[in-house]
Amino acid sequence: MRVLGVDPGLTRCGIGVVEGSPGRPLRLVDVSVIRTPAAADLGERLLRIEVKLDEWISQYAPDAVAVERVFSQHNVRTVMGTAQASGVAALVAARRGLTVAMHTPSEVKAAVSGNGRADKEQVAFMVMRLLRLESKPAPADASDALALAICQVWRGGAANRLAAAVNGARR
Amino acid sequence: MRVLGVDPGLTRCGIGVVEGSPGRPLRLVDVSVIRTPAAADLGERLLRIEVKLDEWISQYAPDAVAVERVFSQHNVRTVMGTAQASGVAALVAARRGLTVAMHTPSEVKAAVSGNGRADKEQVAFMVMRLLRLESKPAPADASDALALAICQVWRGGAANRLAAAVNGARR
Repeated sequence: MRVLGVDPGLTRCGIGVVEGSPGRPLRLVDVSVIRTPAAADLGERLLRIEVKLDEWISQYAPDAVAVERVFSQHNVRTVMGTAQASGVAALVAARRGLTVAMHTPSEVKAAVSGNGRADKEQVAFMVMRLLRLESKPAPADASDALALAICQVWRGGAANRLAAAVNGARR
Repeated sequence: MRVLGVDPGLTRCGIGVVEGSPGRPLRLVDVSVIRTPAAADLGERLLRIEVKLDEWISQYAPDAVAVERVFSQHNVRTVMGTAQASGVAALVAARRGLTVAMHTPSEVKAAVSGNGRADKEQVAFMVMRLLRLESKPAPADASDALALAICQVWRGGAANRLAAAVNGARR
C-alpha cells in the first residue's frame, strides 16, 4: 500500500509518500514541500501545486491520497488558501481515479503518537521513528504530510486493500 | 470585452457570460448553474465543476474570469466548499492564461445596484434590467454570476482592455 499524504497550504504544501501495511514496517518513498510565491496570483499558485501533485502521482503511482481536513477556526486568509490547496489535491486525485481520504489533525496525531493533542515536535519525532529516518523531517509541513500518509496506511482498512488492488490491476 | 462570472459553490455553482464595455449596453451570452450531488466525494464534485468551466471557456472564449471572493464569516462547512470551488475556478482560468478578478459581494452589489448592501432580489432585478432580460435570472446563483461578470466589465478598466487585446491576438 502506497499513500501520498498532502498537508495543504499555498505558501508551503507538504507532500510525502509512504509505503507499508498495518503491522509491517513503513518505508519513506519521498518527501518534499511545494512552495509558491505570495506575490503570485491565486490561480498561478494553485496551478503550481496542481502540476507538482500530478508529477508525483505519475512518478510514484500511489494507491491513495490522504489530505488534511481543513477547519475554519484560525486566521481567515490562511484558511481560505489552505482549503483551496486541499481542493486542488482532491481534484487531482479524483481526476486520476484515486481514493481521497480526509483526516483531521487530531486523527493524524493520535494515529502516529497515540495522543490527539500531540505537538508538532512530537509528531515529527514519531514520524522519524516510524520511518527509521536519521533526523526529523523538516519543515513541519513535510513531517505532517508523512504523518497523514502513515495515518492512512494504518487506518484505511478495507478501503486501502480495494484501492491497492484496483491500482495494481491498472499498472 | 467578454467576462465569465463564477459564483462559486459545491451544491450550486453559478456561471454566466456577459459581453460589453463601460458606457455601452451589455449583452447576456449564456448563463447556467453547475450542480454536483452532495453524496459525491469532494474530488468528484470539484472535478465536475472543473470540466464544466473548461467547456465554457473553450466555447465562449472569455477575456477574463470574475470570481466571488469568499469570506469565512458564515457556516464553516459551506465556506470550505465555496473556497474550494473558487480555487478550481482560479486554477482553470490560470491554466488558460486568463486574468482572474476577485470581487467581494458588496463590490458586486454596489456595481450593479449602487448599493453595497442590496438584497438578492434587488441584484436579480438590476441584472434583468441591465441585460434587458424578460425575467429575473434564477436561481440566485445564476443571477450572482451575471452580476459578477457585469461588475468586472465595468470595473476592470485598463486590465480589461489589456486582457481583451491579448485574447483577441490569441484568437
